Amino acid sequence: MMHEHESTISRRRLLGTAAGAGAAGLVAGAAGGVAGHALASGDAPAPLTSLGAASVPFHGARQAGITTALQSHAHLVAFDLVAGARRKEAAALMRRWSAAAEAMTQGGAPDGDDLVAADAGPSSLTVTFGFGASFFDRTGLKSRRPDALAPLPSFSADALDADRSDGDLFVQIGADDALVAFHALRTLQRAADGTARVRWQMNGFNRAPGATARPMSMRNLMGQVDGTNNPKPSDADFEERVFVPAGGDPEWMAGGSYAVVRRIRMLLDAWDNLSGEQQDRVIGRRKSDGAPLSGGTETTPVDLGKQNPDGSLAVPGDAHVRVAAPSENGGAAMLRRSFSYHDGFDADGVPDAGLLFVAWQADPRRGFVPVQRKLDRGDGLSRFLRHETSALFAVPGGAKRGEYVGQRLLES
Amino acid sequence: MMHEHESTISRRRLLGTAAGAGAAGLVAGAAGGVAGHALASGDAPAPLTSLGAASVPFHGARQAGITTALQSHAHLVAFDLVAGARRKEAAALMRRWSAAAEAMTQGGAPDGDDLVAADAGPSSLTVTFGFGASFFDRTGLKSRRPDALAPLPSFSADALDADRSDGDLFVQIGADDALVAFHALRTLQRAADGTARVRWQMNGFNRAPGATARPMSMRNLMGQVDGTNNPKPSDADFEERVFVPAGGDPEWMAGGSYAVVRRIRMLLDAWDNLSGEQQDRVIGRRKSDGAPLSGGTETTPVDLGKQNPDGSLAVPGDAHVRVAAPSENGGAAMLRRSFSYHDGFDADGVPDAGLLFVAWQADPRRGFVPVQRKLDRGDGLSRFLRHETSALFAVPGGAKRGEYVGQRLLES
Repeated sequence: MMHEHESTISRRRLLGTAAGAGAAGLVAGAAGGVAGHALASGDAPAPLTSLGAASVPFHGARQAGITTALQSHAHLVAFDLVAGARRKEAAALMRRWSAAAEAMTQGGAPDGDDLVAADAGPSSLTVTFGFGASFFDRTGLKSRRPDALAPLPSFSADALDADRSDGDLFVQIGADDALVAFHALRTLQRAADGTARVRWQMNGFNRAPGATARPMSMRNLMGQVDGTNNPKPSDADFEERVFVPAGGDPEWMAGGSYAVVRRIRMLLDAWDNLSGEQQDRVIGRRKSDGAPLSGGTETTPVDLGKQNPDGSLAVPGDAHVRVAAPSENGGAAMLRRSFSYHDGFDADGVPDAGLLFVAWQADPRRGFVPVQRKLDRGDGLSRFLRHETSALFAVPGGAKRGEYVGQRLLES
Repeated sequence: MMHEHESTISRRRLLGTAAGAGAAGLVAGAAGGVAGHALASGDAPAPLTSLGAASVPFHGARQAGITTALQSHAHLVAFDLVAGARRKEAAALMRRWSAAAEAMTQGGAPDGDDLVAADAGPSSLTVTFGFGASFFDRTGLKSRRPDALAPLPSFSADALDADRSDGDLFVQIGADDALVAFHALRTLQRAADGTARVRWQMNGFNRAPGATARPMSMRNLMGQVDGTNNPKPSDADFEERVFVPAGGDPEWMAGGSYAVVRRIRMLLDAWDNLSGEQQDRVIGRRKSDGAPLSGGTETTPVDLGKQNPDGSLAVPGDAHVRVAAPSENGGAAMLRRSFSYHDGFDADGVPDAGLLFVAWQADPRRGFVPVQRKLDRGDGLSRFLRHETSALFAVPGGAKRGEYVGQRLLES
């Protein structure tokens, strides 16, 4: 029996390698028939489409899953080290996790695989690892903890559940197939057995590739076009906003980033009670097409000074886009890469749904913190939101081939 | 402001109509570039792919979502009528729901839409409605309740949560995009306001179109290839097994079917502790490729009499495929159309995951009940499963254009 299992895994490995080679340079989620056709000559009875065949490199100067195009499925997970697990055990875990993540993202499978993702391509799977402040205490690495990992301040809109906040280790899994994403989650959980256990875990989603003719318009569960004003890789200051530079502090974080993770519940019943015009004024954009109330189309820069004929501000004083604008926050900005969530309904029939907000920045003290302070005081949208969990993680740079993620922290 | 909202909705309506016309006869989930190209001439800046543009007709002799190809996302929902809502209010609700479902499945949107699915195509959305036994009591229609809707017997492996079982009204939503599915769920909930409220709701998923080169192999979260032995529309007895015939009892169920819905938790930690060979013997098929232990490939019929050289049965006596085989159950069979679920982890780190089992049959007393009785006594797999919820619904035939689903029950 084990023979068949092994040969299947080997086939998947081969398919994975073929996809990896054929898809080199393929941006995750982008169409690319070439990779699909390359697979047609393999063992499989029909070619994978670009969705299944698309693979994102695991190794590199930066971890995948930060500037990678949003996938349709995500798991956000925090693990805590078990009693007795310290630096040595944590290093072994990061080595096991990195090997498993490399295999799975390239379409392979680790030994003893449960076959849940068998027959599927890597489907743009990414796995991103990070460390919470408590990790440094437990592993005796307190002296190497970055200053940027200082606890986030509390905000008046917070209603935080401590059990689903923070954590020693962070894993962000993204993929364009739900079973591929679940398989990665379960595989990493099993690989952690005896060293770390799940502290909290959240399921997220975004639009499926091909479901919309406007893939740039990611609507959230309030129906708003979200992320229009995100920093773009083509921006001159994108790198310095999002990534820790070489020679930064601490040195082991070079090429890394800090992730702020918040489960932001949307109070959808209250929101849906507003008229369309009221909703537009809360946001400062037209819900229908995302265009700012100061005029133009979705991509037109917001003109915060624009006045209506009666002299009132076209973009109201407490509109979300005004309060969040970098120009109003000393230039503070972060790369938001969020997923929607929906975990059923409360006993009173209200959906437990909203945003798994994930923001990436070179330093949260110049990104999330000043922006959220401003929003907390003056954002009209905050009446319709509740921040239910919060976490901050140091996400190190990517691993070179033969390295594991976090090796520069754990072994030097 | 309202002007823009309305014109957006109108545009979506037009797009929806175009997709409906262009995609007539398109099997959900099947590739079909034609519909996508038809949309390219519209208002949208880029063509929808076949995934977004694919639409499934709402009207017809049967409801959609029974023989429709499995979508990648599902919501299973039960509603209860509120106190005071009786036959008249229930009829008005079914009329509102049918109108909303027709609009959404064809890419349109009802008035006052929240725009969560704006910019997206219908993405093979289906909405399927049914009635639970309690519906007939509450609406004064007890005399028209089908005998086939008698309560299911209890089984020894049941550990049922009454709060997430049964219900007056059933809605099954399927789509290949998570936001399209959520939008449909939320829209139907809002349309029910004042008449019915959510009793329970479950999120399910399956493989994304294009993620696998073997789309017929739907693996479940145990890693098993599932559904191989399902009745097929090409089978001579498919119709009589799955659908109530014209002139059946009761007449209003002609073209309808009965849905058994069970949340079956998989005890994955126990399962993963078995070797691959042990797992194969529990199922009676090779996990690697789905081939029966009696030989051949996935599609080879199982040979239950086949012996090993030592005289033992090739397919063990308690193997799942043996105990579930129609030949062992007086020919009883049902169309299984299930989704996986994953609702996080228990406090002890065990995944709350498994199968949202949905089985369709002309009469559960000749489908689910005898098969489950047999499984309950002798299935080796049942040690690794726990039935946590149970419901049975009468799903009437489809509505003709101008009709609503259930009209023949509620108005004649």
